[in-house]
Amino acid sequence: MINFVKNQLNVKAKKEINYNIIISEDIFNSQNEVILSGGKKKESRRFIIIDDFIYKLHYEKIETYFEKKLIKTKIISLPGGEANKTVANYLELFKELNDYPIDRRREPIIGIGGGVITDIVGLMASTFRGSTPHIKIPTTLMGYIDAAVQIKTGVNFGDSLNRMVCYEPPYTVILDKSFLRTLPNRHLINGIAGVLKLAVIKDSWLFEYLERYGEEGIESKFQNQPGQGILNRTIVGMVDELQANLYETVLERPLDFGHTFSPVLEVDSCGDLLHGEAVALDIAFSIVLANQLELLSDSAVDRILRLMDKLNLPYYHFILKPERLWESLLDQMRHRDGFQRVPLPTMIGGCIFINNITYENIVEACRGLEQIYRANGGGNADQRELGS
Amino acid sequence: MINFVKNQLNVKAKKEINYNIIISEDIFNSQNEVILSGGKKKESRRFIIIDDFIYKLHYEKIETYFEKKLIKTKIISLPGGEANKTVANYLELFKELNDYPIDRRREPIIGIGGGVITDIVGLMASTFRGSTPHIKIPTTLMGYIDAAVQIKTGVNFGDSLNRMVCYEPPYTVILDKSFLRTLPNRHLINGIAGVLKLAVIKDSWLFEYLERYGEEGIESKFQNQPGQGILNRTIVGMVDELQANLYETVLERPLDFGHTFSPVLEVDSCGDLLHGEAVALDIAFSIVLANQLELLSDSAVDRILRLMDKLNLPYYHFILKPERLWESLLDQMRHRDGFQRVPLPTMIGGCIFINNITYENIVEACRGLEQIYRANGGGNADQRELGS
Repeated sequence: MINFVKNQLNVKAKKEINYNIIISEDIFNSQNEVILSGGKKKESRRFIIIDDFIYKLHYEKIETYFEKKLIKTKIISLPGGEANKTVANYLELFKELNDYPIDRRREPIIGIGGGVITDIVGLMASTFRGSTPHIKIPTTLMGYIDAAVQIKTGVNFGDSLNRMVCYEPPYTVILDKSFLRTLPNRHLINGIAGVLKLAVIKDSWLFEYLERYGEEGIESKFQNQPGQGILNRTIVGMVDELQANLYETVLERPLDFGHTFSPVLEVDSCGDLLHGEAVALDIAFSIVLANQLELLSDSAVDRILRLMDKLNLPYYHFILKPERLWESLLDQMRHRDGFQRVPLPTMIGGCIFINNITYENIVEACRGLEQIYRANGGGNADQRELGS
Repeated sequence: MINFVKNQLNVKAKKEINYNIIISEDIFNSQNEVILSGGKKKESRRFIIIDDFIYKLHYEKIETYFEKKLIKTKIISLPGGEANKTVANYLELFKELNDYPIDRRREPIIGIGGGVITDIVGLMASTFRGSTPHIKIPTTLMGYIDAAVQIKTGVNFGDSLNRMVCYEPPYTVILDKSFLRTLPNRHLINGIAGVLKLAVIKDSWLFEYLERYGEEGIESKFQNQPGQGILNRTIVGMVDELQANLYETVLERPLDFGHTFSPVLEVDSCGDLLHGEAVALDIAFSIVLANQLELLSDSAVDRILRLMDKLNLPYYHFILKPERLWESLLDQMRHRDGFQRVPLPTMIGGCIFINNITYENIVEACRGLEQIYRANGGGNADQRELGS
């Protein structure tokens, strides 16, 4: 029997998190019920938010699927892209959902799209009636290997990226790599930045695999065996990291690699840089910084930059300015309780956390990276080429 | 080692919820550090949202307290009352917090006020950077025995009460009953509805205690021993219920008693009814309904209504209309996955869940309650008297 003891009463409970990441194919074929598993079926309702590009390609199939199953739907299409990850969109969709509406626990909200869409859907699910189940179906590479498998959801708040954020475990994540077939090349490369992040920071096997099969995987839009191999290995690595620290109670996160300096790059580029491109620039900058701090060898830096070049990842951009990179670090320190806690690689596949980076270090690393870039006669990192 | 098995990867984790509800006194005396326990102290910052009435009474003490401790503060006062539990207020406060800002994990947001204030603060804490600690200090009776000790937080969404809602465990709840001293009588009685709810549905001991000491407790504004006895017993009962079902995974909740029909009453009264007053009307209606469904004896109904009358709780209001009560039930069914799951008492101190209430039952119960009201020559439930 609980009671006050010395004027104090302790409330204790456990919340179990348990969700499946399921690889499936042809998910809108009427034989495939993975999208309905667990929820109420006949005569039920679904609220679906879908990337507008994907919707244009697949709307007939999707609508027919639910009609055949006698499930009513409200489908709202939304353009992807960071500029749409706004409080305004979240509120508008929340209103649509509330007007529709759905049952609280057995008619999951479904998000089909890139990280922007699945992140908004997750926030809606977290805040609608205090948690409604949601299903995430990523259609971009970055969504597939990163955003959709996480429990972190949210929107930007003005210039503050991912500031209005909730942890909300999905009901299910459904991975259908056929969506990647229609992804523009630039978006494939954008996603590869997330794969590279994981490879550098914790998985030398994945790094070597990328060296050997990366180009081929991208070439096939991840439809061939090496492509699937890269996807699976990355997700397993992600889940391995996430599961141990799902609510980010530990603020030293290897997954923060590439995310200390990139936020200002995304903001400063005014939408010109995709998230993964900014992460790639952060990775390039961070490895040069790690090298100058005598953490990472010349040969490792060289190997990483060669791989980035091979995979067409940008590694330099005139937007890299020491003052702004420093400001980004200071802002991230609020997020990391006053410490820098910057993950920096000590080798390919391993990292430590650094707390004593100075402004001078940043100036020097910036200069170092630019020199490498100039020595290679520019590269694929020039802004004009990014949009191509 | 985790990996895909048959194209499926399971993510499993546990989140531990652990927070203290602490009874304290004179919490802004510099000797008292309960409000700072756990957080960063010297040279830290606190973002504080406080009920404007409480702020006017105590601002000198509060400001001096933090100054002496060398803690910077941003204090924002906000009027209490359901009309302020809006998305607009939430967003504005979120912006203030983001502009201020605080560290992510060691500078708790502090909410001092009634349920409206602590609910908004909880939602902010849940969504700012994906969970920031928060401390709740209730200053109303309803906050003290109900809102503040819960993990459910949120705001209304237009006419939909508590629709934008998150579960966010507080860092600490600090109970200082001296705040109740300045509470207007109507707000004390408002809070008593929450005590009565618990007594009827699960605690006959508390019911008898209320019969014996309720008036005396209210008279002393809960400053005397019986007053503290009522508070403690109610909180222990609340926590007992909450702890077993903290995330409302079980949709049959005894605590939903008084909350099936009251939402429309709150909306329809356009702010004339306080939350607890609407709950009181729901309780009175529900026990007459339970009686007509042959669940609850005449004598129990009589005893409950007599206690309500004694404690000046409203038990009838012309706003009770069968059509609207039915609509409220239908709306709650969405919240309870398509079933009514209405908790109704079978005796004083016990309840069951009912799923087959008909519209006719509601018409009849409405008529029954009105008859009781007329037979008693009106009562304290007349609208004109409510505001007094």
